[in-house]
Amino acid sequence: MSAGAYTVEIRVMPRASLLDPQGQAVHHALQALGFGDVAGVRAGKHLVVQVQAATREEAAAKARSMCDRLLANPVTEDYECSVSP
Amino acid sequence: MSAGAYTVEIRVMPRASLLDPQGQAVHHALQALGFGDVAGVRAGKHLVVQVQAATREEAAAKARSMCDRLLANPVTEDYECSVSP
Repeated sequence: MSAGAYTVEIRVMPRASLLDPQGQAVHHALQALGFGDVAGVRAGKHLVVQVQAATREEAAAKARSMCDRLLANPVTEDYECSVSP
Repeated sequence: MSAGAYTVEIRVMPRASLLDPQGQAVHHALQALGFGDVAGVRAGKHLVVQVQAATREEAAAKARSMCDRLLANPVTEDYECSVSP
């Protein structure tokens, strides 16, 4: 089975129930710039990982394993992965 | 015209032509953990902004203005915005 190259987009965000100091700082900075219509900001990470895998499902499983072991803090963050093509 | 609440998802990534030290650090860490199938990692920011606007188009225009003025570095970063609902 030949491996293919997949691109995994990973979004890591602070859990909704937790404070997000970085998002609050961005919110305040936007208001200071005159963006008074902003009601809230959440700030997280976006990672694009190029991975070799036999199938799309295997690429997604590898990405979830990367998130569980390194990319996301399981206590404070949630993640979503989407694989292309 | 009554304003509505829109959620804008903003993705800010280092330009493809530039080095990405944070992405390289994540790449090396993944390889050290045994993820040898990873060919590359790019690391950026993901922001979720709640904004009041009259229309979806106005919400998108505000988000682009926020990116131009604060959220993205015009020299080193590219951004994409998507508005919902």
